[in-house]
Amino acid sequence: MLERFSVRAEDQVLVDHEALRRTVADLFVACGVSDDDATAGADVLVTADLRGVETHGVSNMLRQYIGWFRDGVHKPSPEWTIVHETRGTATIDGDRGLGILQGGPAMQLTIEKARDVGVGTVTMRNSGHLGPIGHFAYQAAEQGMVGMCMTASSLLIVPTFGALPRYGTNPIAFAAPARSQPFMLFDAAMSTVASNKIGLARRVGADMEPGWIAEPDGTPVMEERPAPSGSFSLLPLGGTREQGSHKGYGLGLLVEVMTTLLAGAVPRMVERDTKPRHSFIAYNVAAFTDLDQFKDTMDQMLQTLTETPPAPGHERVLYPGLPEHETEMQRRANGIPLHREVIDWFSGITSELSVAPLVTL
Amino acid sequence: MLERFSVRAEDQVLVDHEALRRTVADLFVACGVSDDDATAGADVLVTADLRGVETHGVSNMLRQYIGWFRDGVHKPSPEWTIVHETRGTATIDGDRGLGILQGGPAMQLTIEKARDVGVGTVTMRNSGHLGPIGHFAYQAAEQGMVGMCMTASSLLIVPTFGALPRYGTNPIAFAAPARSQPFMLFDAAMSTVASNKIGLARRVGADMEPGWIAEPDGTPVMEERPAPSGSFSLLPLGGTREQGSHKGYGLGLLVEVMTTLLAGAVPRMVERDTKPRHSFIAYNVAAFTDLDQFKDTMDQMLQTLTETPPAPGHERVLYPGLPEHETEMQRRANGIPLHREVIDWFSGITSELSVAPLVTL
Repeated sequence: MLERFSVRAEDQVLVDHEALRRTVADLFVACGVSDDDATAGADVLVTADLRGVETHGVSNMLRQYIGWFRDGVHKPSPEWTIVHETRGTATIDGDRGLGILQGGPAMQLTIEKARDVGVGTVTMRNSGHLGPIGHFAYQAAEQGMVGMCMTASSLLIVPTFGALPRYGTNPIAFAAPARSQPFMLFDAAMSTVASNKIGLARRVGADMEPGWIAEPDGTPVMEERPAPSGSFSLLPLGGTREQGSHKGYGLGLLVEVMTTLLAGAVPRMVERDTKPRHSFIAYNVAAFTDLDQFKDTMDQMLQTLTETPPAPGHERVLYPGLPEHETEMQRRANGIPLHREVIDWFSGITSELSVAPLVTL
Repeated sequence: MLERFSVRAEDQVLVDHEALRRTVADLFVACGVSDDDATAGADVLVTADLRGVETHGVSNMLRQYIGWFRDGVHKPSPEWTIVHETRGTATIDGDRGLGILQGGPAMQLTIEKARDVGVGTVTMRNSGHLGPIGHFAYQAAEQGMVGMCMTASSLLIVPTFGALPRYGTNPIAFAAPARSQPFMLFDAAMSTVASNKIGLARRVGADMEPGWIAEPDGTPVMEERPAPSGSFSLLPLGGTREQGSHKGYGLGLLVEVMTTLLAGAVPRMVERDTKPRHSFIAYNVAAFTDLDQFKDTMDQMLQTLTETPPAPGHERVLYPGLPEHETEMQRRANGIPLHREVIDWFSGITSELSVAPLVTL
């Protein structure tokens, strides 16, 4: 399925990740973002592209971010306020900053709290798009912790049995460190598919699978069908009630509570223009058990999973984070494939913002 | 679907929940459980029956629990040890106690930690079956907190693309308080269905839905079919990769990490006889935001959900915890329906253990 959505070889231009980082950071700086934030933000986006998460990488997101800065939707230099704080928690007002630039510092605060009292939880309201949230969960894992990150997004999902969208794809990310195996890194929308997948299917002319979207009256679409050209609602993970959509729906609401309600904000289903809200959680492994033993056991578990005999028609069993790690190794060596159209956009925007042009391979 | 699985009217005997509590507590005491633990354990089981969660109530679980005590599998009076502790966390060795009797005190410790530092997380290894884990999440919600509970269960689920079961149904429970609406209470296995549902389908002669179980070679069974008579493996929530089973799989692993790895234990896929492991989390709402405002916003959100226009063929939109609350109100007033066969079992076991017989309505 994923393969169907990738850029065709004849439309690809390869770019080295270091060159891409430089250009993305330069563009952020040209929008008024500080050098440090720009470097961190470029790392978030380019890492997504390295790991094959195109939906949340440079090509899909950067032009929106730049547009938002130019239109004044987000402040390039926000000053966040901690509105509530305890030893293990904080609630932050993000001052309309861009999420991908605020996620790193927010997770670092969470990690410091977990280092202090074993577990930390930070919520943030009045922020912006958080991008590939797995990035921030991974940040905790790199520091010997189990990390989680969630974000509440636009009104896109119909509740089970419902006819109108009431909440967003509300992804959950989760990362845990291992010793020699690639870290476990789970990052998934609590809909059957991420909304960007519908746009991608439309762009490459692929059919959608059953259980992805709802008819305008809320009925689950249960056959293969081209992606709709207009607006659509997504189904909760599970698709139909019989196949567990009430579970995907409940998990979506869990994210809404953890991000929106625990940040002292109001869900979009109640107030349409509520700004993005996030949640960051870190569990300090050393507070619970021996970190070395934890990593060894992670290795054993992840190896057991990959050594599981595959079902007929499948080559092997994966775990969350493994294919992305493999893609990252390959793309670090060989470059990141970007669509010609994205290269053209870079060409225009770097010229417009007087930034050095993107160097391709 | 749920309706198909309920006990037929002609097989039902009604029992008042107070009478059922007394008998269940008496039976626990007869097994060597302390009065307090027996009362708490009866509350866990009978509340499940009141809320219509028959899979985890008296009829489905009590005889197993009594059998385990009699066979020495679990200690009726365990003495747990806290093996690691910080201000916000604890790791407990459960001394082979029964989970449903240990969950309440473990969650209470979690809540105290959250009252101290805003968030608390307690893991437990070497315990027993935790039963309806939503009960413990709800315990936190009743004390003004957002509560979570997870437990790692037997090897039952095949990973996406895999041919052998590698982890359990690994349920996640989540509860959040509201002001005048019934609390949100989510409690769901991270498989398409709970394993008990297959047994129930078999018992009442109902077909399984597509996406519930795997063929012996791991291939998802995608048609309606009678429940298998022998052993089977379940599919992760989502069913197939195209419909998001990799998400259900990742969530199952998330639970494995939070319960097993963070408790310093080893997953069953690595060591088959690892004893049950659990995780309890409490977020003190008042540490993040104003509790009254939180409850009011919860009310607004839950009302917005129930007022959502339904899709054709559906009566109304629910939220997790609402139908269970309605069942509880009805059963508190009219009694809990138990199958005649369960009544017969009570008759035998109360006589055998010299306990006063169960009073029916």
